[in-house]
Amino acid sequence: MAINKALEFKLGAVGCASTGNLANSVAANAAAAGLPSFILIPDNLEHSKVAATLIYGTRLIAVKGNYDAVNRLCSQIVDRYHFGFVNINLRPFYAEGSKTMAYEIAEQLGWRAPDAIVIPMAGGSLIGKVYKGFNELELIGLLKDSKRCRLYGGQASGCNPIIDAVKRGTRDIRPVKPNTIAKSLAIGNPADGYYAAGLIPASGGWAEDATDPEIVDGIQLLAETEGVFTETAGGVTVAVAQKLVQQGRIKPHDLTVLAITGNGLKTLDALRLAPPQVIEPKLAAFEEVLGGVYRVA
Amino acid sequence: MAINKALEFKLGAVGCASTGNLANSVAANAAAAGLPSFILIPDNLEHSKVAATLIYGTRLIAVKGNYDAVNRLCSQIVDRYHFGFVNINLRPFYAEGSKTMAYEIAEQLGWRAPDAIVIPMAGGSLIGKVYKGFNELELIGLLKDSKRCRLYGGQASGCNPIIDAVKRGTRDIRPVKPNTIAKSLAIGNPADGYYAAGLIPASGGWAEDATDPEIVDGIQLLAETEGVFTETAGGVTVAVAQKLVQQGRIKPHDLTVLAITGNGLKTLDALRLAPPQVIEPKLAAFEEVLGGVYRVA
Repeated sequence: MAINKALEFKLGAVGCASTGNLANSVAANAAAAGLPSFILIPDNLEHSKVAATLIYGTRLIAVKGNYDAVNRLCSQIVDRYHFGFVNINLRPFYAEGSKTMAYEIAEQLGWRAPDAIVIPMAGGSLIGKVYKGFNELELIGLLKDSKRCRLYGGQASGCNPIIDAVKRGTRDIRPVKPNTIAKSLAIGNPADGYYAAGLIPASGGWAEDATDPEIVDGIQLLAETEGVFTETAGGVTVAVAQKLVQQGRIKPHDLTVLAITGNGLKTLDALRLAPPQVIEPKLAAFEEVLGGVYRVA
Repeated sequence: MAINKALEFKLGAVGCASTGNLANSVAANAAAAGLPSFILIPDNLEHSKVAATLIYGTRLIAVKGNYDAVNRLCSQIVDRYHFGFVNINLRPFYAEGSKTMAYEIAEQLGWRAPDAIVIPMAGGSLIGKVYKGFNELELIGLLKDSKRCRLYGGQASGCNPIIDAVKRGTRDIRPVKPNTIAKSLAIGNPADGYYAAGLIPASGGWAEDATDPEIVDGIQLLAETEGVFTETAGGVTVAVAQKLVQQGRIKPHDLTVLAITGNGLKTLDALRLAPPQVIEPKLAAFEEVLGGVYRVA
């Protein structure tokens, strides 16, 4: 959405401030559109997110400091240059593009909104736009019923300014200094936090955070039960959903969607996986690993 | 397909011999199906493919030796145990599952088969099953025209037994010892090589291989032009397609599909990417990187 607008506005280049995933996306879409791009990231990002941005031939710049420092610099850049930074001066279009997620969920549920949706929050934009997407589908008569979706927001405990505001019953965000393995959610001063903190309780939903060990457990649980391997942000979603079910806020009969927003290959370093056993290429070696519990053919 | 058959046959566990990608897939699908799994891989695989298998809670076993040693051991295992190894004793079902790729391509082309398709080959199964998929769609009247798709097979130059057979005009495969960065294609004695080497020329197609530097260039070219980041096997596809176009075997007017069969995050180590520039969070620092060529707003 944002890249198409940049083309329409005949901007000289596109870019973004990013914690990693947006960097991948903007670099890829800019390459496909034939636009030069400048991507600015904090200098502590995961190697895989850096590599999966560089590969597209973008100008990738690592800024000393956290995301909020990167974001401030990007605001100065678009003030001065005729550039379209998707989450700065193109932000309205970028945000509207997120409604696509609601459209796809509704389609896959047979043109229904879920009762509950759990969404990880960084800048806090996605959750509101997904809600808007469901509401617009209902407005134009594309949903089979008119129930409203309850919004549940998740953050890492090491960067939870929106959760904190919801729990204090306010929209006023107190910025934090992020410290979490969920680097894609590490935005201490979320641009849309004010709106998210208002919308979540108004929808009948709630907000929770997850510690780093809970995030890793969430990644593992999703993989072992659903066969889906997600990055740390998805681990937040799963861990937060578990808490909300335990608190009785999400009920077993609720049609519930968990937003798994990133691929596990991007945050391998967050995991502590035991290496595979190494054996000689002999049946006896395999049988030693196997033990004797399996039926012989 | 194979996992569903394992459930139907009430097998005690599933597994596979894998160069990495099948390992990810079988471990994930076994987890989702609630089946125990044993995955056997060569002991030199990429860290990311190992991690993206372990995460599903499978029993992952690294075998000292190359894929062909792993494959032999797996044949002994299924001979002795009541297990379903998807590419060994469940191979007919596993292979039929690959036809799905043809169905999706035809659907996305508006119910047409392409004129040409370039497919990377490891064991040589996929290329024949994609062909079968198109032919079956035509047979039941789901394709809009009856033209036949020309099959083009790609391998790495460091493991090209099927390419070698096609170029010698025979179906008789001479096994090789693999030596390539395209580890997911590193099968020196391909199970379906005999069939692939016959089918490719019979379809009017051809076969080519790509060196390791050409594979990396192929990955880069696809990223920079299409915004798609693929692993080494996809780099083989792109590099081979370029050669076939240069040879005049694939023409500009041909509706051509390139099979990009794996995610670039799986083979980051094969790339040589310059690290991003690191700057202070100041506009002046950014402008130093930028140079003076861009229009000021």
